[in-house]
Amino acid sequence: MPHSRRIETVQAKLRRKKIDALLVTQPHNRRYLSGYTPADHDIGESSGVLLIPARKAPLLLTDFRFQIQAEREVKDMEVMLYSKGLLALLKGLLPDLAISRLAFESHYTLHSVADKMLVMADKIGISLLPVNGMVEEMRLIKSEDEIDKLRRSVLLNEQVFQQVYQTIAPGQTEIDIALSLESTMRRLGAESPSFETIVATGKRSALPHAVPGPVTIEENQPLMIDMGLLLDGYCSDMTRTFVPGKSDSKYLEIHRLVRKAQQAATKTIRAGVSAAAVDKSARSIISDAGYGDNFGHALGHGVGLAVHEEPRLSSRNRKHLRAGMIVTIEPGIYLPDWGGVRLENMAVVREEGCEVLNQDTTWLDI
Amino acid sequence: MPHSRRIETVQAKLRRKKIDALLVTQPHNRRYLSGYTPADHDIGESSGVLLIPARKAPLLLTDFRFQIQAEREVKDMEVMLYSKGLLALLKGLLPDLAISRLAFESHYTLHSVADKMLVMADKIGISLLPVNGMVEEMRLIKSEDEIDKLRRSVLLNEQVFQQVYQTIAPGQTEIDIALSLESTMRRLGAESPSFETIVATGKRSALPHAVPGPVTIEENQPLMIDMGLLLDGYCSDMTRTFVPGKSDSKYLEIHRLVRKAQQAATKTIRAGVSAAAVDKSARSIISDAGYGDNFGHALGHGVGLAVHEEPRLSSRNRKHLRAGMIVTIEPGIYLPDWGGVRLENMAVVREEGCEVLNQDTTWLDI
Repeated sequence: MPHSRRIETVQAKLRRKKIDALLVTQPHNRRYLSGYTPADHDIGESSGVLLIPARKAPLLLTDFRFQIQAEREVKDMEVMLYSKGLLALLKGLLPDLAISRLAFESHYTLHSVADKMLVMADKIGISLLPVNGMVEEMRLIKSEDEIDKLRRSVLLNEQVFQQVYQTIAPGQTEIDIALSLESTMRRLGAESPSFETIVATGKRSALPHAVPGPVTIEENQPLMIDMGLLLDGYCSDMTRTFVPGKSDSKYLEIHRLVRKAQQAATKTIRAGVSAAAVDKSARSIISDAGYGDNFGHALGHGVGLAVHEEPRLSSRNRKHLRAGMIVTIEPGIYLPDWGGVRLENMAVVREEGCEVLNQDTTWLDI
Repeated sequence: MPHSRRIETVQAKLRRKKIDALLVTQPHNRRYLSGYTPADHDIGESSGVLLIPARKAPLLLTDFRFQIQAEREVKDMEVMLYSKGLLALLKGLLPDLAISRLAFESHYTLHSVADKMLVMADKIGISLLPVNGMVEEMRLIKSEDEIDKLRRSVLLNEQVFQQVYQTIAPGQTEIDIALSLESTMRRLGAESPSFETIVATGKRSALPHAVPGPVTIEENQPLMIDMGLLLDGYCSDMTRTFVPGKSDSKYLEIHRLVRKAQQAATKTIRAGVSAAAVDKSARSIISDAGYGDNFGHALGHGVGLAVHEEPRLSSRNRKHLRAGMIVTIEPGIYLPDWGGVRLENMAVVREEGCEVLNQDTTWLDI
């Protein structure tokens, strides 16, 4: 069981740090360690937490609404319900389990909740230790089994893109295309989109995070589609930009430059190279052509159970890539009064280079 | 301009508390005070924050990706970009604005971020003050203009429900119906669903938070649909449960009991009544019939820019309702080996009673 092995890894970390237990609030960490699938509507509305003692069996703590799902999905953990809130349950449970040093996920606990936990901890005489990224560190390097799941997510995403791409026709709006993509995702078996699908036409493609609107697709203008889905818990994330109709020389110039930057980064990625160096390999091509100010975001980000995770491929990240990481490679150029081009693939970092997971070549090399 | 008046209200509160500025990180508060519409992908990925000095003009701080949208949507605030992160910008900006006591939203700031803010504040010699719900308190009571927006959201949601309800047919799956609802929402002009649509058939309707699956709708069994949408920023939230085919006496018994509980609560709601009393008015009917243990959630919650907000209609909330609050009334009975019935309307609290916003009566009184 991968879950029980992951739990053992957490427990070994806790023992090394002389911590009695870890409270896992981050939803992807929760799923990674238990297989429990619900998302949280938002950080204030948890569908449950894991309590992982260093030397005892882990527990899933949740409320009535999730009891049936929790018991069905989580076979190797006891499910315990809180009816009066998590803190009231912990107040009794922690002393029972002889936990006197409890770690919590500082990066996924609200300041106001931590304040209340401190009051509770004081009352029962235990100490609280903020930790950051203890489980994320494990999630950073994907097993071959996880890479397979990510590959299947990428390929399904491409299949969805292709089905819809074939049907794009004059008169359709951004929303029409976004809806068609999202419903095709689910019909083909995705759990959900992995983020809000972006479809942006014409000048609107200069907004890197455009929300699809009731806007008719402009012919002979850039059309940017940034889409991803969740399959078996794992995310895909792909961007294609193309022109319905005829592309002019300006479009070809910008598109080819972005693709050249993407290819340079793809060649640079391998275990041992710094994230900043990968970012630079793409950015310098765009800067040298005079568009440095129009590429305002980082080159890429990690993908796994979360669609945006470590490592960030940014100029400020000096850390070195390691084999088994999965990253996006997504340079872009955005010109406010014209539009934008972004091209995005996902790749696995390998010892000797990288393995691009995408097979779709639509409008890449034009 | 309602935004500028809301800003003035915040500024008056700050001056009363001798606070120099408030940093608004909560996305609905941000929209409420500025009109800036982006959602945050999650709490770790902000699309911007407001800095509201007590005696100077407010600022919207965001990054490159949102610049065009921010400048278009937010007319009466200066938009300032951070390229090296929010904290780096604040480090220079706060002294420039002579802010020495900065409040932050404790209930929407991660513990880890607050830690970093404290380090920054120490360096520049300012003090940080956690505040909770200063803007939410303003959002609690809706203006008639906001009530109109909520009413339109409710009515559009019902129109979507009706269109799809008419097409429900044997052989369809939960996912088919959920997709049909969500695409109809967007085609009829909604920004998005206000939460993940629930469609649950047969025994699956006993999971209060069921995720639609590739499961064929069972004839003669309960079918629960819980759906909502976002229109002009405001949320709707409605649940209907019915039986495709023939309902048996057990179904009729449970459904009528839930409806009776809902009607009792509807009659109880008015300004001055405690939230707990409203919950009790519905719960006692269900408990008296022997199903108390099968109604495991609170009776309702506030709705506005957020789909779940204050006030909670729960047995633990002793606060009194006030005119202009908007709440859901959603009792339910869930029997694990049989299924569940939940019926949900939205209502405005008025001085002398409540005004139910829903007009749809499908399968309510059977």
